Formats: sequence, C-alpha cells, structure tokens
Amino acid sequence: MITAKAPPPPCASGFFRKIESGPSPVAETLGLAKLRGINVAGLYRSRRSFVSHARSKPTKAKENAGASLIDDWLKPIKAKEDSDTEERAAAFPGKNLPQMSNVGNATNILWHDCPIQKQDRQQLLQQKGCVIWLTGLSGSGKSTIACALSRSLHSRGKLSYILDGDNIRHGLNHDLSFKAEDRSENIRRIGEVAKLFADAGVICITSLISPYQKDRDACRALLPKGDFIEVFIDVPLQVCEARDPKGLYKLARAGKIKGFTGIDDPYEPPCSCEIVLQQKGNGCKSPSDMAEIVISYLEENGYLRA
Amino acid sequence: MITAKAPPPPCASGFFRKIESGPSPVAETLGLAKLRGINVAGLYRSRRSFVSHARSKPTKAKENAGASLIDDWLKPIKAKEDSDTEERAAAFPGKNLPQMSNVGNATNILWHDCPIQKQDRQQLLQQKGCVIWLTGLSGSGKSTIACALSRSLHSRGKLSYILDGDNIRHGLNHDLSFKAEDRSENIRRIGEVAKLFADAGVICITSLISPYQKDRDACRALLPKGDFIEVFIDVPLQVCEARDPKGLYKLARAGKIKGFTGIDDPYEPPCSCEIVLQQKGNGCKSPSDMAEIVISYLEENGYLRA
Repeated sequence: MITAKAPPPPCASGFFRKIESGPSPVAETLGLAKLRGINVAGLYRSRRSFVSHARSKPTKAKENAGASLIDDWLKPIKAKEDSDTEERAAAFPGKNLPQMSNVGNATNILWHDCPIQKQDRQQLLQQKGCVIWLTGLSGSGKSTIACALSRSLHSRGKLSYILDGDNIRHGLNHDLSFKAEDRSENIRRIGEVAKLFADAGVICITSLISPYQKDRDACRALLPKGDFIEVFIDVPLQVCEARDPKGLYKLARAGKIKGFTGIDDPYEPPCSCEIVLQQKGNGCKSPSDMAEIVISYLEENGYLRA
Repeated sequence: MITAKAPPPPCASGFFRKIESGPSPVAETLGLAKLRGINVAGLYRSRRSFVSHARSKPTKAKENAGASLIDDWLKPIKAKEDSDTEERAAAFPGKNLPQMSNVGNATNILWHDCPIQKQDRQQLLQQKGCVIWLTGLSGSGKSTIACALSRSLHSRGKLSYILDGDNIRHGLNHDLSFKAEDRSENIRRIGEVAKLFADAGVICITSLISPYQKDRDACRALLPKGDFIEVFIDVPLQVCEARDPKGLYKLARAGKIKGFTGIDDPYEPPCSCEIVLQQKGNGCKSPSDMAEIVISYLEENGYLRA
C-alpha cells in the first residue's frame, strides 16, 4: 500500500477555498475554483492549463450577498460562459445541466467538468467518438457484423468497443427481465453507457434488437447530432427464423417464450436510419462486406480522424 | 441513407448454418459457427483470423443426437476450450458464463465472443485497462484528483475516462435516489460500467464517495485481479466540512439532508486498499502531486504499457 501524507488547512481546504472576497491566491495558482460554471482562473490563465473544480454556492442568501462581485466577474468572460454552456449542452442535448441541481430522483447533484475533454481524447486516438447502433431481429447477424466491424476498425488502428445486449445482461443489466419496461430500461442503460464511451472518444458499437423506434430515438437524443449512427440489419423474419442460431424462434413458436420480437411482439423498422444493410434480392454480402459499408460511412463522415 | 443489398438463403442463413452433419463449407470459410464455446473454424484455421459467432443447441434432444460428433470435435481442441473458458472467467470472476444461460431476471442469454479482445485494444493503446477507484468523504477532493490524474495520463499519451458519481446521476443513474438501496445500486452500476471501460483498454477513474466496504468489494470482484486499484482519499471530516464546497455539510448539520456520509451515515475507510492519499500531518500536497503518486503506482505495476 502506498501512503502519501500532507497536512490539513490552509492548503487542504484551499482545494475549494471560498472566493467571495475575490479570486484567492490558490484559485489563481492552481485554477481550482469555479463559480457557476465559470473557471475563475480563466480570468488570468487559459482554461486547459489547469485542474478545475466545479463549485456553486450553498444557499441562495449567500449567493445574493456576493451578487455584485459575481456580476463583475461574469462580465469579462460572459462569452466564454456561453460557449462552455453550449458545448456541454451539445454533448448532452435535451438536458439542462446546472452546476447544482435536482436530477431525477436525487437532489443536490453537482456537475463536475474536467480539463481533459472529448476533443482531447479524440486527438489522442485520431478518431471521433460515436455510437454505431445496430438494430434488427434476433438472428439477423448483429453480433457477427459488430465483430467484423470491430476487427476492421482495429486493423485501421481505431479503438472500438462492442456493447452487446446479451453480454450486458450478464453485468450491468443483470437485474432486468424481458418484460416490456425492463427491455426499455435495458436499452436506455445501454444508450447511456454508449454515450459515455462516445464521450471517451471510442467508436462504440451496440448490438441489440431494440425493436421500438421510441427507445432508439431516446438513445439518439443522448448524443450530439450526427454521432448516433443507426444501422438497420434488414433481414426478413423467415431468414432469421430459418437460421434460429439460439433456437429461440422455435421456443417462441411453441409458446415457451412470450413477447418474442417478430413472433408475438412487433419489430418497428427504423424510419430514418443512417445505414441499411439488407439481406434481400440478389448478391451475397459477407459480414466483412457489410462492415466495410459502415466503415465507408465513418470515413466519409470524418469519424476515422480527429 | 446507405443501403446495401444481398440475398437470403443459402448465404444469408449460412451466417449460422447448422453444423450437426459436420463443419459446413460456410463455417470452414468464414469461421462463423461456434459450438458450445468451441470455434469450429478453429479446427482448421487460427481463431483470430475469423469472425466468429457463439452458437448453442436449441434443445437437449438435438444436442444428444449429435453428441458423438461433438465429442469427436471436442478432443483435438479441448485445451483451447479450457483456455478460452479460463480467460473469460478471469475477465469476469465470480460469474459462470455458459453460452446460453439464465442470467439474473432474464432467460436464454447467449454470450457473444469477439475476435478483438481486451489485449488487442491494450496493444493498440499501449496501456492496460484498469479501474482507479477513488473513495473518500464528500469534499475530500476526489473529483479534483480525478481531473489531475486524467490530465497527467493524457500528457503521457494514455487514454483515461472519469466516471464521476454526480455526473453519472445525470444520465445512467438518473432514476436513482440517495436512499440506501439506490446508493448501493448507483455504485454497482458504476462498477459494472467501469469494468466495461477497463475491458475496452481504458484507464477508468471513478470518483464517488462509495462509503461501504461491501459495495467497493463487490466492484473489485468484477475485475481481474490487480485491475481494481482502490485509492482512499483520506481527509479528516473536519477538513472536508470546513471546505464544504457544495454546502452539503451545512445542510446535513441543519437536518435538511438525511443520511449524509460522515454526519448521520458512516464512512467505512478501506481496510486494504492499494493507495492512501492523506491530508494529515505536515507537508502540503497539491492534487497534481497526489495524481503523480497514482501514476507511479500505475507505472510500477505495468499499466502504462501494453
């Protein structure tokens, strides 16, 4: 075990030293203090050079007490504040992200910004983080195409990661069943995790039936515009059923599985997805061929460079 | 929208062609078929050269019908099967991962393996995926140290990603409150997501109070041995309370927040963590200094190379 010792105040409390009376020497030196989304140190030095810590006032009364000072500070960097807010809003569209807020079922949630952002990670990886959302019937080949895609990206030196619906049920979504609300929650959580991976700069490939448009749309809404790439693996039900790689269609037809997509539960084909990979008509495409179609899309849309 | 067309059977159904009567030409060519965790194509070609798809038999009766053939196939690659199973078991300790299984509240869950594995991603990134689990009281400086660590790793060309407890409550854990079981579920989910990031090859930094040993231990158990690096930010309560960056201690003392760690809910210090970062005694360590202690640990333990 490694143990590092350091003393308490003033330096310890200086991590978050109060700044009502003006920018503290600590804030100036380490750039640690942030006031309502404004990096106070940014008044003096550039934002990316420092460790910053989000900070907000405990009570309304205190905030008002320092209002004139806050107003003074806000003026010179108002433009920057707007830019930061917009940047974060774009990364988390549809969400209002105050510094301290009530979120869902929890209260007093602070948003923590970090100096290393998505674009820094993208620069490091020489790619753009995004989500490739594979949707289609059971047995349509989602997992196979996901693997082919992952292999092709890897061969190009690009970092991808597959979130497979079945695999995630072994861990994060271990507590969810296949009843309607749990299937929806399964998709929501995978969408949220995919968003984190994309934010990390990773090309995240999700592979799950995701039969309902509203669930897919909800996941799309989590990502900045363009970063959610919906890929419909369009294989007819009879082909999937003939394959029946997991024997699930047989069980569903025998009534041993209820609410099975394509049998007694609907699959809603995407109405405006980015890519359709079809197994119809003439010609025979291998999973690798299909993966290359997605790769071309990524290349053309700038996702394979920073 | 890009649309790619290809026909149905035989090539479409060939994705998962039945192999009861011996390895099919498709399985041989594309390496697509897997039988109870065994890559059938592995009999003929090396595993990493192909797209593989996990496959298991629908019914017991069918499985028995092909038993002698299966037994024959198992013999030459029995060692490989064991090796694969052990590899996956190490990555997901404490979990039994059959090809088709009942998992938690869900049934018929198949495990999908992919040819691009953690070690391939680590090779690409020239680092080892792991979880740096920062634990400590509110106001102890977890988020600040997480940011300093992320910046230091980035400057070394290493990919890290911060899972901040507060930030995750804006998305994945939006549905959770601060009541005991929800706090526990909050930690469980972050542990599961951190595991995915580590599996992706990323150095994942988590930043949440995580006051109970059992919750932290449960997250540790998700990771391969050594890959869960518990870092205790050991700052005395009175220092954290003096800082009170979010004003939460004040609210807790006033009885406006119930079950607040350190006030009316216990914090259990780690009993055997990898690193302790103390704010006690003499000397004054900046967040960057503390981050460097963690960096040294990572360096010494081989996490900053593939």
